[in-house]
Amino acid sequence: MPKTVFSVDLKKAPEDQAIKTHNRWHPDIPMVETFKPGDVFRVECYDWTGGQIGNNNSANDVRDVNLTRVHYLSGPFGVEGAEPGDLLVVDILDIGALPDSEWGFNGLFAKENGGGFLTEHYPNATKSIWDFKGIYTTSRHVPGVRYPGLIHPGLIGCLPDHKLLAEANRREAELVATDPERVPPLAALPFGDTALMGQMSGDAARRAAAEAWRTVPPREHGGNCDIKNLSRGSKVYFPVYVKGGGLSMGDIHFSQGDGEITFCGAIEMAGWIDISVDVIKGGMAKYGIINPIFKPSPIDPHFDDYLIFEGISVDEHTGEQYYLDAHVAYRRACLNAIEYLKKFGYSGEQAYSILGTAPVEGRIAGIVDIPNVCATLAIPTAIFDFDINPNASGPTKKVSGADVARTS
Amino acid sequence: MPKTVFSVDLKKAPEDQAIKTHNRWHPDIPMVETFKPGDVFRVECYDWTGGQIGNNNSANDVRDVNLTRVHYLSGPFGVEGAEPGDLLVVDILDIGALPDSEWGFNGLFAKENGGGFLTEHYPNATKSIWDFKGIYTTSRHVPGVRYPGLIHPGLIGCLPDHKLLAEANRREAELVATDPERVPPLAALPFGDTALMGQMSGDAARRAAAEAWRTVPPREHGGNCDIKNLSRGSKVYFPVYVKGGGLSMGDIHFSQGDGEITFCGAIEMAGWIDISVDVIKGGMAKYGIINPIFKPSPIDPHFDDYLIFEGISVDEHTGEQYYLDAHVAYRRACLNAIEYLKKFGYSGEQAYSILGTAPVEGRIAGIVDIPNVCATLAIPTAIFDFDINPNASGPTKKVSGADVARTS
Amino acid sequence: MPKTVFSVDLKKAPEDQAIKTHNRWHPDIPMVETFKPGDVFRVECYDWTGGQIGNNNSANDVRDVNLTRVHYLSGPFGVEGAEPGDLLVVDILDIGALPDSEWGFNGLFAKENGGGFLTEHYPNATKSIWDFKGIYTTSRHVPGVRYPGLIHPGLIGCLPDHKLLAEANRREAELVATDPERVPPLAALPFGDTALMGQMSGDAARRAAAEAWRTVPPREHGGNCDIKNLSRGSKVYFPVYVKGGGLSMGDIHFSQGDGEITFCGAIEMAGWIDISVDVIKGGMAKYGIINPIFKPSPIDPHFDDYLIFEGISVDEHTGEQYYLDAHVAYRRACLNAIEYLKKFGYSGEQAYSILGTAPVEGRIAGIVDIPNVCATLAIPTAIFDFDINPNASGPTKKVSGADVARTS
Amino acid sequence: MPKTVFSVDLKKAPEDQAIKTHNRWHPDIPMVETFKPGDVFRVECYDWTGGQIGNNNSANDVRDVNLTRVHYLSGPFGVEGAEPGDLLVVDILDIGALPDSEWGFNGLFAKENGGGFLTEHYPNATKSIWDFKGIYTTSRHVPGVRYPGLIHPGLIGCLPDHKLLAEANRREAELVATDPERVPPLAALPFGDTALMGQMSGDAARRAAAEAWRTVPPREHGGNCDIKNLSRGSKVYFPVYVKGGGLSMGDIHFSQGDGEITFCGAIEMAGWIDISVDVIKGGMAKYGIINPIFKPSPIDPHFDDYLIFEGISVDEHTGEQYYLDAHVAYRRACLNAIEYLKKFGYSGEQAYSILGTAPVEGRIAGIVDIPNVCATLAIPTAIFDFDINPNASGPTKKVSGADVARTS
Repeated sequence: MPKTVFSVDLKKAPEDQAIKTHNRWHPDIPMVETFKPGDVFRVECYDWTGGQIGNNNSANDVRDVNLTRVHYLSGPFGVEGAEPGDLLVVDILDIGALPDSEWGFNGLFAKENGGGFLTEHYPNATKSIWDFKGIYTTSRHVPGVRYPGLIHPGLIGCLPDHKLLAEANRREAELVATDPERVPPLAALPFGDTALMGQMSGDAARRAAAEAWRTVPPREHGGNCDIKNLSRGSKVYFPVYVKGGGLSMGDIHFSQGDGEITFCGAIEMAGWIDISVDVIKGGMAKYGIINPIFKPSPIDPHFDDYLIFEGISVDEHTGEQYYLDAHVAYRRACLNAIEYLKKFGYSGEQAYSILGTAPVEGRIAGIVDIPNVCATLAIPTAIFDFDINPNASGPTKKVSGADVARTS
Repeated sequence: MPKTVFSVDLKKAPEDQAIKTHNRWHPDIPMVETFKPGDVFRVECYDWTGGQIGNNNSANDVRDVNLTRVHYLSGPFGVEGAEPGDLLVVDILDIGALPDSEWGFNGLFAKENGGGFLTEHYPNATKSIWDFKGIYTTSRHVPGVRYPGLIHPGLIGCLPDHKLLAEANRREAELVATDPERVPPLAALPFGDTALMGQMSGDAARRAAAEAWRTVPPREHGGNCDIKNLSRGSKVYFPVYVKGGGLSMGDIHFSQGDGEITFCGAIEMAGWIDISVDVIKGGMAKYGIINPIFKPSPIDPHFDDYLIFEGISVDEHTGEQYYLDAHVAYRRACLNAIEYLKKFGYSGEQAYSILGTAPVEGRIAGIVDIPNVCATLAIPTAIFDFDINPNASGPTKKVSGADVARTS
Repeated sequence: MPKTVFSVDLKKAPEDQAIKTHNRWHPDIPMVETFKPGDVFRVECYDWTGGQIGNNNSANDVRDVNLTRVHYLSGPFGVEGAEPGDLLVVDILDIGALPDSEWGFNGLFAKENGGGFLTEHYPNATKSIWDFKGIYTTSRHVPGVRYPGLIHPGLIGCLPDHKLLAEANRREAELVATDPERVPPLAALPFGDTALMGQMSGDAARRAAAEAWRTVPPREHGGNCDIKNLSRGSKVYFPVYVKGGGLSMGDIHFSQGDGEITFCGAIEMAGWIDISVDVIKGGMAKYGIINPIFKPSPIDPHFDDYLIFEGISVDEHTGEQYYLDAHVAYRRACLNAIEYLKKFGYSGEQAYSILGTAPVEGRIAGIVDIPNVCATLAIPTAIFDFDINPNASGPTKKVSGADVARTS
Repeated sequence: MPKTVFSVDLKKAPEDQAIKTHNRWHPDIPMVETFKPGDVFRVECYDWTGGQIGNNNSANDVRDVNLTRVHYLSGPFGVEGAEPGDLLVVDILDIGALPDSEWGFNGLFAKENGGGFLTEHYPNATKSIWDFKGIYTTSRHVPGVRYPGLIHPGLIGCLPDHKLLAEANRREAELVATDPERVPPLAALPFGDTALMGQMSGDAARRAAAEAWRTVPPREHGGNCDIKNLSRGSKVYFPVYVKGGGLSMGDIHFSQGDGEITFCGAIEMAGWIDISVDVIKGGMAKYGIINPIFKPSPIDPHFDDYLIFEGISVDEHTGEQYYLDAHVAYRRACLNAIEYLKKFGYSGEQAYSILGTAPVEGRIAGIVDIPNVCATLAIPTAIFDFDINPNASGPTKKVSGADVARTS
């Protein structure tokens, strides 16, 4: 077993860990430890909420989650020889649950607290708990489905440099300024009060926290990409901005659908990640790389039978025609899939949770045929205990009784 | 061999065929022929431009193409018993090239005549010719790649009814009205002058043509979805709006990448499609279906090794931050891939053509992490004659000399 | 469409074709035509019986087939520059049925005329007819299944030289000599009377026919390998023994299971093959190659769900223990699968035909654990219209009425 | 984490464990514990030699291994309600290495002590050590390859009843009687001296040991099947012969090629297995089941590019023709692959170890074409650091220096 270089005690709050986590990105956060190219090590991680969500049957905790106190990251780790302009090559060797924590959660945020991709349709907080049984997961709140995990860190990346930090802060502030009172806001701007800055402390930490990135969005450095295929066995090439690289990670998902449409999110879990690191000197310029690139794993779950839903960029409420809007098209594909699944007895929230947690594929099929994008959502049929294909007889109720957890 | 129920003589213009094609959608276009559920038949189709593009080394024809005279469709075909509210089940049994026409073309439209997904970057008309060798294609204009075909109709669907016709005309006209002088226009509104209305003629045809849908976008009925996986062996369930269904198809692609980003388009070809038809009575309500759904083919080409590029929704020119804009994010992923491929010696236009024609996968990875969407573009590495993976030595020029055809 | 360099008129007997076929292998058979490396051409082929089997509901023709008049091969074709010791690189670009011949047959030979892998259990001649519908096939004699074709030449290879010819004749004669009266014989020795020697004629042909190889077995040159994955899109490297190579092919199968256990055989068909050729000079020594090697196709049908049967090397009748005998173990695995399928209503012969024609995988799991081999047979569950997985309720009859064609 | 119901302390000998293992099969071995259908539990297992092989650079321990003291099994476990004639449904939920034991070994036995599939060619004991890095393994003794694990129990099955016990003892004794002095013997007959009988002791144990099955071969109950696809995520249906079933397992492999041709064996390891159990009442008769059947896992490593070697049933030394002998044909395919790999610099023993440990596929292609079987061996090309495909230039030495461990 590789040496555990960052451990997490789930019985303690994130603020009270032996090694301090960070929930912001900043160039000056010190490395926890520095490795040689080729080194293999284990990193333990909190679930993304740092333990705010319980394994129970109430969605109150999802409703009340504090979204400024999330994404407790493990790191940053340095690699000898990594310098700005290099590529940090990261092999995600394996990922697993912590003993006595073999479960995860999926939630729909309340519209007034984060919302989600379909928050106009499903504005209330709900929750489902997912138990892990080896490579599979099932839920007492969403019966009739079982998935093999496509376990991955929702969030992984290198520290930005000061230039990139400033640039993203500029562009995000400008976006927020176009509609500063919006709920939810257009972007999550720096907010020092709840920042954890890893090994930084005192005034330096306070100053850095005031300008440090929030962790919500993916950016050039990677970050919260929520790419389900960054799974165990994959290989990622990250741009390096600061000396040593500064690799951090967290927000482990047992399984997720493309888009992570439920926002809270995938099947969220605490766990560990085994990685090895290497460096390609000057790789950013050699290969013209701005954002991370990656290669998927040979053991990603494979399915050959899918039922695929289409969506076009026309608003479902108003009938308004959008111009080549992939966001609207994908939303329509998701809504189409949910209506379909409801015919088998699922509640809308259950179906929504399936799309957020199962290894569904979200594709951009056609993006040039004005004015409609055609987006598709592909559901692997094998995740269901029953046959979901259309037939002449029509669907029958296969699921009843159980439902997602709701608020009280 | 199934009976050919719609034949195309490539030596004649679309207007001069024995059976009239149609290049608009309208409820009143008469059925060419009506089949029983279970029937199998062959349909021949023009390439989408109706023969405007030649197998030569000049892009002048791409520059000058008349975009109001495109999408010459074969059909509509009726199915006994199909009525509004049913699902028309279409098995796409096989697809092939017409004898003596075993080639296709890919083009980038000039910015002032249609453009494409990356037209700001590649504003000039270019062309590449692709030869078919059994299941594979290669191009004298884009060396170093060979793909197995994922041959499919870019365009297939049932006739709309009058209500849907009017509704889409309304919403598209409203969109155009927001910026009526825009070039290219925000949508392609009805335009009777160049309409071919199949077996309709005289005043009826003229009246219908004035309100008939242009064929550019996908809509609720299917249409120009450009879904690369509607390939031979797939099964599609179309909503039925008019008695008999009225299934038409055309715009065959030998291969296409997700998004069909080059707009002109995939590898465009004339060819034939063998289909069988069936009906699920009342299927739209039974399954809650608004848009077509489908199942992919067991013989879709399978690749296990991909190189995957990420993009986020920040404008590449201005650095402007967009809000959860999957369109921008996918554009950035595409541009990132092009810059990478250029390091191996491809021109930008060649790399762009590869993304438009190879079976690349375009995914929405994360779409809720404000303000950035993370989109991914996955390129199968096996389509290249050489190794495109990153390594410590950096890339070397593998391709030189040949380039796409340009205008004179 | 590539030029057809060998055409077959199915209305004429093999003996009466414009270009003479050959049904024996001999170094001196003249090349039909010689190609340059890189050339692409189309070859038409008889079904392996040369038209002895009819599309009807009687198995009399299977019972009475003349097994010395089979494997009418198309070729041999030469390639410029190919010399003994080289590798002939053959891309199998595409394969299809001849127009008006979109069907095939599968038979069980009578025990006294050829038999099959399970002839002790199924000693009578039977037949099933399989219709092609695009990429799929179904049978009126075996309901409840539909396969995507894995179309391939059962027989393809280069001409042997005189040394290899003599060597195989020696070893096969020695085998037959151990039990010369056996029915069926231990091997098919040269038999000049029914030989077709291609473009050879007169005394030379007669002399060659007397020593020419029968086509039944695979040998070092390839030949009747019955490898289902030599399908369209695959690439094969053949040892070259004579100047020019002398590539011949035939015995096309629309689909076959590993082992071709029904012997007559797979789904047998007439058709065409498009190939291109190339040469690796000195490739046999460079790579240490004795038998052909090959690479499979990216469009081979892919299945992810299989039901897999095990067999061990103990005789099913006598309970006799065999020593590491993979033949017995695979037979037991096949018999186990047949008994299972019979529980769903199939006759034994129907189930046997499914194993012979569907893309089932036959594996050697363990071959060193004295005294038992463990062989496995994997059936893709998706080929059935119904669920064949075990469950607590037990199987129900899903198939009834129809059966294979039998003799009268 | 499921409850560990059978633990193994690698610092102690198998004879000294808290819970006694068994290395024989016998109906009367008492259950360690009995579970309810649906229960999930963890079972720890020795490596198959019980710790005889060290992580070092000498093959002396492989040379000297005591083959009567192997296959230390964990179990048997009972399931409530399981009775003779039922099927025991076993979900293999996950498998892993024990902490501080993240390595495995592969050996070739000396010809005079067990031998292997190719022992006539490679008669000397050798060894390679394989390190686990997450889902992958590499070896300091076999450079240039890295595999994703296809981790599985080589040995798993239910206790036989007295009738089956006697029947197999009879048939195996009769086989041995045909050549009783043979080295290695034709079968491993009961041998009480080194038997461990689990919780049995005293005279009862001694009496049972004298007739108990050795664990070498697979039999009707499962046992040492060495099926590489019984991996984590697979589901197996075992025949039940005794009340409670009596499920035992061991001999974990990190990875293995079809055939386990190196005999010692795959990549052998100690580890743990998480399983859940269920029962199908009367399933043996309902489904006509004699041997176990199973379904593979959705996370089995997937490869699309293979280089495939053919072999026919002609002896490589004598040129003797065998009659439909799949054993000889597969041996020839393996030898062909080894000669090929040697061209890249591997020693024969290294290449042999690759075939024994990598996820290679061994198939029976054609088994009816008298007198030759055509067997194939498919090597996934992606396991190599370099390109192993043939090309015009010929192979170059890619591997040098390191070799397998040998005896001193």
